[in-house]
Amino acid sequence: MRDFLPAEKKRRERVLGVIRERYQAHGFDEIETPVMEDSERLHAGLGGDNEKLAFGVLKRGLTHEEILAAEEPLDLVDLGLRFDLTVPLARFYASHRAELPTVFRAIQMAPVWRAERPQKGRFRQFVQCDIDIIGEPGIQAEAELLVATLATVDALGLADATIRINDRRLLTGMLAALGFEEYEYDSVLITIDKLDKVGIDGVAAELRSREVTPDAVAALEEFFLRPQTLEWLPFGEAAIRKALPPDPDPEVVSELVALGEAVGAARGGTEVLVFDPFLVRGMGYYTGPIFELVHPSAPYSLGGGGRYDGMIGRFLGSEVPATGFSLGFERLVDLVEPLVDETTASVALVHDAEVPLARLLGLQAEVLAGGNRARLVRRAKNTKPQLEGLAVEGFTSFAFVTSETTDADSLEFRPLD
Amino acid sequence: MRDFLPAEKKRRERVLGVIRERYQAHGFDEIETPVMEDSERLHAGLGGDNEKLAFGVLKRGLTHEEILAAEEPLDLVDLGLRFDLTVPLARFYASHRAELPTVFRAIQMAPVWRAERPQKGRFRQFVQCDIDIIGEPGIQAEAELLVATLATVDALGLADATIRINDRRLLTGMLAALGFEEYEYDSVLITIDKLDKVGIDGVAAELRSREVTPDAVAALEEFFLRPQTLEWLPFGEAAIRKALPPDPDPEVVSELVALGEAVGAARGGTEVLVFDPFLVRGMGYYTGPIFELVHPSAPYSLGGGGRYDGMIGRFLGSEVPATGFSLGFERLVDLVEPLVDETTASVALVHDAEVPLARLLGLQAEVLAGGNRARLVRRAKNTKPQLEGLAVEGFTSFAFVTSETTDADSLEFRPLD
Repeated sequence: MRDFLPAEKKRRERVLGVIRERYQAHGFDEIETPVMEDSERLHAGLGGDNEKLAFGVLKRGLTHEEILAAEEPLDLVDLGLRFDLTVPLARFYASHRAELPTVFRAIQMAPVWRAERPQKGRFRQFVQCDIDIIGEPGIQAEAELLVATLATVDALGLADATIRINDRRLLTGMLAALGFEEYEYDSVLITIDKLDKVGIDGVAAELRSREVTPDAVAALEEFFLRPQTLEWLPFGEAAIRKALPPDPDPEVVSELVALGEAVGAARGGTEVLVFDPFLVRGMGYYTGPIFELVHPSAPYSLGGGGRYDGMIGRFLGSEVPATGFSLGFERLVDLVEPLVDETTASVALVHDAEVPLARLLGLQAEVLAGGNRARLVRRAKNTKPQLEGLAVEGFTSFAFVTSETTDADSLEFRPLD
Repeated sequence: MRDFLPAEKKRRERVLGVIRERYQAHGFDEIETPVMEDSERLHAGLGGDNEKLAFGVLKRGLTHEEILAAEEPLDLVDLGLRFDLTVPLARFYASHRAELPTVFRAIQMAPVWRAERPQKGRFRQFVQCDIDIIGEPGIQAEAELLVATLATVDALGLADATIRINDRRLLTGMLAALGFEEYEYDSVLITIDKLDKVGIDGVAAELRSREVTPDAVAALEEFFLRPQTLEWLPFGEAAIRKALPPDPDPEVVSELVALGEAVGAARGGTEVLVFDPFLVRGMGYYTGPIFELVHPSAPYSLGGGGRYDGMIGRFLGSEVPATGFSLGFERLVDLVEPLVDETTASVALVHDAEVPLARLLGLQAEVLAGGNRARLVRRAKNTKPQLEGLAVEGFTSFAFVTSETTDADSLEFRPLD
């Protein structure tokens, strides 16, 4: 968990502002949920491994007897801090469905908490920026998510981002074609998900070391080694078919092709899309197209998502289609060039100690009335480092105020840099 | 704890944006701290009654033996959710002092949590907007806080706000003059703080029912009943002296008079200030001037604050002067008229189901390129209620998209209201 000092806080708020503005422009609406959810809901099996990382909030007013009666830590908590924004969204939608549009496009930009072991680049509190479309079963939803996300990444100045696409249904079709048994799919996918980290040999070795159908593992290894498997063609039917075993589900293939055409129509080209036959995404709840945002300047993904049609039904009792995309805000904010606000001047009024307070505040009011930022700063003995410090803080100009300064017209503004 | 739906979330973000913008213009810098602090720090005696309302976060990895060994609930927690923004600020300042300006003007706009019993108008998660000036011992700090706060309230469209001012040192001087013993001051102040709620008789009755110096209680009651005690004059020395027992501390009186003159200089008049000899403010850590923001449309205060010179020293080991003002965001947001964004049009593209997706996204891209907000909406059987719903959602115009629509030039936009 981190403190954010003024410069970093400003940078974060600017990036959040750009994301909010772009997603809203694309027709999404921002919502907010409380940071605590019922502990039972957080541990309902929808959060995968993240459930284990949830911070629990102690029940209020526990007596000593109640503490002694607890069989496990979870008996002592009734609330917990959310570990993602998807479980709260599902609960939110189930609570407020009647007040929301038939197709609901949600923005959530908010912190989540996970009890990670302290390590570089992992935080126990971090911000996620999610968009989700609930109520739309077709790939129009995926197309809107991808177009809005790419526009947002553009607005942040990160050109050259690409989106890797796959589909859970194609993954299971691939596993079937290679000879895996259905009960093995989940665990095999978890291993394939490590391909980027451990390579082809690592995946094959891990599968062999477990009790997975040996012929299927051999077939997978052979499949990996086909020259065309990892040769990425321009997104389209040829690329998808070439990367997969023969006879993939034609309906799924044509959906992905249509998705690519739609994104291309909005973007003037599909070159930002890549079909990745081994993209898995960690969460078990995905049911259809899945995606990941990558950028040449970062060795890790900057976000991802996918369709999770079954999940909201768990809260509501009736099936509701849903798909979402989550931007990794903490990773993005480090890549984005500082966004400079050039519309207002930031003025330091560096004053002698003996200038009357009423006059100082009157001068500040005059400078503010011109639409600028203004801070009163008592003049230090040594002004050189003081002025340098103000420049570092982002002030663009200064003026000395002495007991002879009567009004803002008599101030002499000088640039700081 | 509440969910915020799109309209309310938008309103909250707009109000937060205005507050942030005004406070920044006045030279303050925004910071952020994690929502969890060490439990020991939260229970160090600086939070008054709010400490008891802190949510505790269960220690991770507790064994059954450790649970059985707990003597009280606090033994089970190591972190807690902050109940205010002042304790975290003191900890932040102690951690980062070397990286901050000599006089540090902080903005914090963030949620806090208190385990309140559910009742109307009380929330367990709510947002506070605090500004604090650390490192400035003189009333320039108070003057800046009040000027920035009044400018912010103006920008929110709440004209006619006033600020009640008192000083902890004048309060204790008053109690001494009336004959209370020094050890009684804290408890007597807690009772006087209820004056608005229980009236003069209620305060006198409560003091009599306890073991407080009887002559002093009688003197207080007589003092209350002086015609001039509650007759508020234009802010200044005469008003302050008239409202107090004879011979108040002349240095404190002249500080408050200078504060009023300084605020008046920046605002073109002191009529927004009122001296309130019975303003107490709940927290025991205040040491100097204290203030409260009131508005004719609300029966409760909209914020308040004061000087708390001793507090940061508790974390740092050396004395650091500090004063702060906290806006009650949840109360403010209800009073503020919806702030309308008139700079961008919000367009609904109401399309037939058979329009190809690629064309829809291309049309949306064209409308977005004009700087507008655009949402794709599938046309309902009955368009009248659908269009009414879009107007309620804030869309300002719509166009029907049919399979004959080829580009944005062929769209016919019509207003929604």
